[in-house]
Amino acid sequence: MKLRLSREDTILGKIAESARPPSKKRAKLASLPLGIGDDAALFHPLPGHETVLTCDWFLEGTHFLRHKHPPDSIGWKCLARAMSDVAAMGGVPRCFLLSLALPTSLTGRWLDDFLGGLRRASRKFQCVLAGGDTTRRDQILINVTVVGEVRKRRALSRSGAHPGDFLYVSGRLGEAELGLRLLQLSKVRVNSADPLVRKHLYPEPRLALGQWLAGKRLATAMMDLSDGLSSDLPRLCAASGVGARLLASQIPGAQLPIRNRKGGADPLQPALHGGDDYELLFTIPADRRKMVPRSFRGVPLTQIGIITFEQKIVLVDENARELPLPPRGWDPFRLHQSI
Amino acid sequence: MKLRLSREDTILGKIAESARPPSKKRAKLASLPLGIGDDAALFHPLPGHETVLTCDWFLEGTHFLRHKHPPDSIGWKCLARAMSDVAAMGGVPRCFLLSLALPTSLTGRWLDDFLGGLRRASRKFQCVLAGGDTTRRDQILINVTVVGEVRKRRALSRSGAHPGDFLYVSGRLGEAELGLRLLQLSKVRVNSADPLVRKHLYPEPRLALGQWLAGKRLATAMMDLSDGLSSDLPRLCAASGVGARLLASQIPGAQLPIRNRKGGADPLQPALHGGDDYELLFTIPADRRKMVPRSFRGVPLTQIGIITFEQKIVLVDENARELPLPPRGWDPFRLHQSI
Repeated sequence: MKLRLSREDTILGKIAESARPPSKKRAKLASLPLGIGDDAALFHPLPGHETVLTCDWFLEGTHFLRHKHPPDSIGWKCLARAMSDVAAMGGVPRCFLLSLALPTSLTGRWLDDFLGGLRRASRKFQCVLAGGDTTRRDQILINVTVVGEVRKRRALSRSGAHPGDFLYVSGRLGEAELGLRLLQLSKVRVNSADPLVRKHLYPEPRLALGQWLAGKRLATAMMDLSDGLSSDLPRLCAASGVGARLLASQIPGAQLPIRNRKGGADPLQPALHGGDDYELLFTIPADRRKMVPRSFRGVPLTQIGIITFEQKIVLVDENARELPLPPRGWDPFRLHQSI
Repeated sequence: MKLRLSREDTILGKIAESARPPSKKRAKLASLPLGIGDDAALFHPLPGHETVLTCDWFLEGTHFLRHKHPPDSIGWKCLARAMSDVAAMGGVPRCFLLSLALPTSLTGRWLDDFLGGLRRASRKFQCVLAGGDTTRRDQILINVTVVGEVRKRRALSRSGAHPGDFLYVSGRLGEAELGLRLLQLSKVRVNSADPLVRKHLYPEPRLALGQWLAGKRLATAMMDLSDGLSSDLPRLCAASGVGARLLASQIPGAQLPIRNRKGGADPLQPALHGGDDYELLFTIPADRRKMVPRSFRGVPLTQIGIITFEQKIVLVDENARELPLPPRGWDPFRLHQSI
């Protein structure tokens, strides 16, 4: 081969090689007649389905820190958080595009580890790399587009909640926020086996739950919690033209070790305002409430409040006082907020 | 409305408002049952078609300069260059996702002008904003994903070229590179009516041409020229397992004003190595050559060489000497190269 390709092409080749499905058959299964390496990718949509499209920034300094976050976690999380948006529609992720900007110094070992984490998430959730774009940059910039599918008219949007619907959440809230704090405080290499740190580094998109809720037509509205309950719930309410009343005592916070609880740590605040949990927030009409189990494949499902006619968010505390709940979750445009 | 939304939501609202199609009917035409504002967008694929997926970085300092490039041009070009990849497959663009990171200081007038350029490109090429992601950042970061469609088995990849096929290019090469030089040299506000500057600031993706070549099954392989002929041609050849012989005298360079030609400016070098032209490079079998017109809707189509069995790129100069043609176009991983 005497064709000379540019440096960019060798990096693209490395990414394509790492992401190659184990067999041609698998690429076919993924409905990808043409994957990475051409001007664009081709994707075979399933008949009777709609295509779900979403993209997410994942930026050094804003969403992760180069010297705190293992590259393997960055690879896993950039894909997992974008797939979480597909979960929130009740969809099945099919393929993704990776846009990656890197310093040249990270195109060796760092890139290998990053691609390792990306590949694990890609295989676990059967979402195949279809293409992307790479460039050189002093800071690590990542953007992931995920393409998924959902049966026609089965997708769950944010706008279907009605007054009287019950409000539910999956999993425990605030865990990722507490995991981030542990990561920030650690002077040495963090213990990624710690459940809180794990939740921050390797979140699991609630794909099976989202598909089940949409497929059974159980929920009326759904979204994923990426910025924190106090910032995300108003979005669901605004889209539906409703409000919500939350019961503080019902909100499932992180289960802290006894030593922390003795120290007065309150799991409610991170549960209300902490970001990065990627749990699902959904509404269930009163007459379908009995069909919602206490947990789904090991993930607890908890009723945390009710949808109201009045368009405001109210938090009822343990003394039955009604408190306002201002959005204090993640907001990149609020000054001086970053990870 | 007592619901309090975050600052990010007001910026998202501004983008959604600016990009709203003139009527609901139009959004429906665009096959978008659910557009911007939910966790993900929903897209109705056309029966009998494949989905075309592509994404592109467009970054301050790498691809454009904040103080040289008008925001209106940045908005236009970030979408136009991503649509060019859809053109290169012979596809029709349908919708796009915009990922935008901005300093807070640019969320006023600058953002308005940016959205103006974006909207013009979106309307001209009927590609609707379906969703995206915004965040705050010191530098302007843009990533655009375009979703298009192409009839099943009609897409043109890079890999179908055969020895003996004729190599064609649309338009004139190197114009955008020369336009960029004029922009860089200008001390005052650049004259964007200058055809070279215009080609750099407001490139037109060759969508109609790409669709025609694919629909008529005329071309065997196709790609768009984004990094420059000397860098892009080896990619087409590598994908097809072939080489190419180019005739320097046939390569359509920029038509320079007489004063520049007298000064010894040579349009061949930018035509060989200049990036950002977004013209189409395609191969035509000998027996279909007569079906290729000299121009298509005012855009010249020029035969510049032939595909060879031997896998190397050769440039034949005006003295019939065979010269190698190393990739000297845009390569972000080559050190110290940037706009």
